Amino acid sequence: MSRQFDVLVIGGGPGGYVGAIRAAQLGFNVACCESNPYADPKGEPRLGGTCLNVGCIPSKALLHTSHLFEEAGHGFAAQGISVGTPKIDIPTMVGRKNTIVNQLTGGIKGLFKKNKVTLLNGHGSFVAQSEGGWQVKVGEEVVEAKNVIIATGSKARHLPGVLVDNKIVCDNEGALDIDAVPKKLAIIGAGVIGLEMGSVWRRLGSEVTILEALPEFLSVADVDVAKEAAKVFAKQGLNIQLGVTIGEVKASKKGVSLAYTDKDGKELKLDADRLIVSVGRIPNTDGLNAEAVGLKLDERGRVDVDSHCRTNLPGVWAVGDVVTGPMLAHKAMEEAVMVAELMDGQSAHCNFDTIPWVLYTSPEIAWVGKTEQQLKADGVAYKVGKIPFAANGRALGMGDTTGFVKMLADAQSDRILGMHVIGANASELISEGVVAMEFGAASEDLARICHAHPTLSEVVHEAALACDKRPLHF
Amino acid sequence: MSRQFDVLVIGGGPGGYVGAIRAAQLGFNVACCESNPYADPKGEPRLGGTCLNVGCIPSKALLHTSHLFEEAGHGFAAQGISVGTPKIDIPTMVGRKNTIVNQLTGGIKGLFKKNKVTLLNGHGSFVAQSEGGWQVKVGEEVVEAKNVIIATGSKARHLPGVLVDNKIVCDNEGALDIDAVPKKLAIIGAGVIGLEMGSVWRRLGSEVTILEALPEFLSVADVDVAKEAAKVFAKQGLNIQLGVTIGEVKASKKGVSLAYTDKDGKELKLDADRLIVSVGRIPNTDGLNAEAVGLKLDERGRVDVDSHCRTNLPGVWAVGDVVTGPMLAHKAMEEAVMVAELMDGQSAHCNFDTIPWVLYTSPEIAWVGKTEQQLKADGVAYKVGKIPFAANGRALGMGDTTGFVKMLADAQSDRILGMHVIGANASELISEGVVAMEFGAASEDLARICHAHPTLSEVVHEAALACDKRPLHF
Repeated sequence: MSRQFDVLVIGGGPGGYVGAIRAAQLGFNVACCESNPYADPKGEPRLGGTCLNVGCIPSKALLHTSHLFEEAGHGFAAQGISVGTPKIDIPTMVGRKNTIVNQLTGGIKGLFKKNKVTLLNGHGSFVAQSEGGWQVKVGEEVVEAKNVIIATGSKARHLPGVLVDNKIVCDNEGALDIDAVPKKLAIIGAGVIGLEMGSVWRRLGSEVTILEALPEFLSVADVDVAKEAAKVFAKQGLNIQLGVTIGEVKASKKGVSLAYTDKDGKELKLDADRLIVSVGRIPNTDGLNAEAVGLKLDERGRVDVDSHCRTNLPGVWAVGDVVTGPMLAHKAMEEAVMVAELMDGQSAHCNFDTIPWVLYTSPEIAWVGKTEQQLKADGVAYKVGKIPFAANGRALGMGDTTGFVKMLADAQSDRILGMHVIGANASELISEGVVAMEFGAASEDLARICHAHPTLSEVVHEAALACDKRPLHF
Repeated sequence: MSRQFDVLVIGGGPGGYVGAIRAAQLGFNVACCESNPYADPKGEPRLGGTCLNVGCIPSKALLHTSHLFEEAGHGFAAQGISVGTPKIDIPTMVGRKNTIVNQLTGGIKGLFKKNKVTLLNGHGSFVAQSEGGWQVKVGEEVVEAKNVIIATGSKARHLPGVLVDNKIVCDNEGALDIDAVPKKLAIIGAGVIGLEMGSVWRRLGSEVTILEALPEFLSVADVDVAKEAAKVFAKQGLNIQLGVTIGEVKASKKGVSLAYTDKDGKELKLDADRLIVSVGRIPNTDGLNAEAVGLKLDERGRVDVDSHCRTNLPGVWAVGDVVTGPMLAHKAMEEAVMVAELMDGQSAHCNFDTIPWVLYTSPEIAWVGKTEQQLKADGVAYKVGKIPFAANGRALGMGDTTGFVKMLADAQSDRILGMHVIGANASELISEGVVAMEFGAASEDLARICHAHPTLSEVVHEAALACDKRPLHF
């Protein structure tokens, strides 16, 4: 007889491992299966998914190193620190990144042991519905589970005719393991990954050109944030071209040659040592054998779920990148916790209106809630409080005064509808906004709450005051 | 006839200038007087008080530079950045600090102009009560105001027999302008200023010894935080000796020689190139001529106020370091806003239970609410959630995994009673805790709020989950 579990989680990324741990905490007998896409030398599954192995975590390690490298080269002198010309050793930088990734993926294995989650080695594939729930094939074994959580994540979208070898032409995976600073780096796609990787390699000395098909820059962000970001990135030397059409891409062992048409229809060519293709991600439903059990996918190939992450099959749930919504690790984790608690009979829910977005560029960009253009489109009357970091003592002390905090509040009720940050530490500053919005705070609430001095969070405070046209420091 | 104002603010520090600006916003005719303690070359009053001129702001500039200097010397190699041996040019470092101070103090003058606050040059001194309110002498002029806000701040406490020349023997002012890295630096007092300045000069290469009279280290902080801080500072090489009694201090042009008795009664001597005396601060009431109008001081020489910052005299208020409570700039600002709004007939108040504390040491320390030892003393039943930064992906990426977040919640109601952070960016992370506590949040509330990944704020999230013994990543 096949092994029986209360819960089988397919996929060990942020959605999967968190769902598995939370379900185990609630007393379920849980297994989590993970195939081995990230080349563990022992052939064991590496937990953490895209996020830990080839996404959020390794990119932040490289961003930190490249940030310090740039400070050393361009910021130190003004502070009285002299160091000569800094040099970067890419293998050491990448090695440190790998050490961090190994520590964290290993840590999740430890958490599985602690919480008594059974780790199965192999891709999960539906076989059939059964009396005990669902039969799923994992590697050579068929296991049975009352509940199944699909958390298979996403993979990089590639371009037709552009072979990704992750040496010369890279997606997010190869972009993290480039073995020397490319003199010229081309990036297709000015989304999160393109901008973050562009930031890393520009700081380390690459001449970076980013080609983006859309006519607008960073249209997912608030208009003012996108405008400021475009200005700052251009000043840093990131060459971002919008509205382009990519033509033929020829790759050799030494580099790539890209033909493209610019926004004015002019035909151009770009030669580069490396190319990063970051044109979005597609949900991983291959190999799930969805059709065998009648699992419904949506029009974009994602697993179709309701707002509680229920699929069309009883006892089958899906979370994270493989379902609708932003492809963010913390969104997947929230959904996973919700699903585990719903299985436990709790009345869990997930507030999709307060999921923060973060871009770890320099300056960082983070937001929660609505953008100004969304409020306009929705016909909502709003007020704006927008305060630059330039007048903030902490920002001056750090020598980093780029950007602003922009708060949007309902014109009548004063309820905060959105908070947008571009600037140092935006990723951490946003948490205050998320908490405030979760409590249905008015801008006046944040305006009346004491903020430690001197901190960057004082700019959040001032933005709240500015919603009522009474900033104290601007 | 003397000039008439609705409001006269005595003192242009954070409490004073904020009170003046807020009162002006509310339509009052406001003057603010400031004497010239910080040697402006043109003889004009410099706004911003201790905080901007010789406190929070300049210290943060030096802390930032010294942090980068230490990273360059000790952190870069592991990241693959080679820079040789970094050198520090103290005049450039101090010059940058002065530029920031000048920019911000000048900025407040601009805010006064914008808000139509009249700036008076001179110390404010009560003359008499009058029909129009209060007569106050400022320099050679006597002005009259219906309301007076006393915001005269505090000054460094000195030790009897130890002359502070701010060259060899410094208080907080001279400590910020030391012109070369002292080989040996002695500090009397292991409070905020002693620890921050000790951190700056240790990183820049000084051998630092801190002598503290109290037998316990950092007893104002949570016990666990104080213990962790002591461990980390010792590891960094800060030599902190507790329970000492300072004896004779002999200063020459070249340095100081300190006699002291250690906690075991052993008589010892310490020679150093410089000495910083940071043994607390005393309220500035000299020169107010309090006795002429019967202004009541409390047993510790502070202006006596109720919880709304009302003194015993009608229309006379006092805020900031000169009254009871922690000597923190943001506490002064909160009080000042409250006073201005009370004068306007609003029902303002100040929540002293949610004033955050910050120490800008490395690692930073910040907290809000009660410490564990306070809850024990008060007989409150509580639960604890404590999560280290060591398992946090962002902290690993930054190469800075020291410390933890500790959350204290009521055992019955689950309401958050305190949040304590020691670690990178503690000063910014605390704002989420302040907002949560202002909304009377339970630990479960923070546990159920989405935190962006990967951020340090996820450790706050985990600490909240840990209050219910269900952390996901620990």
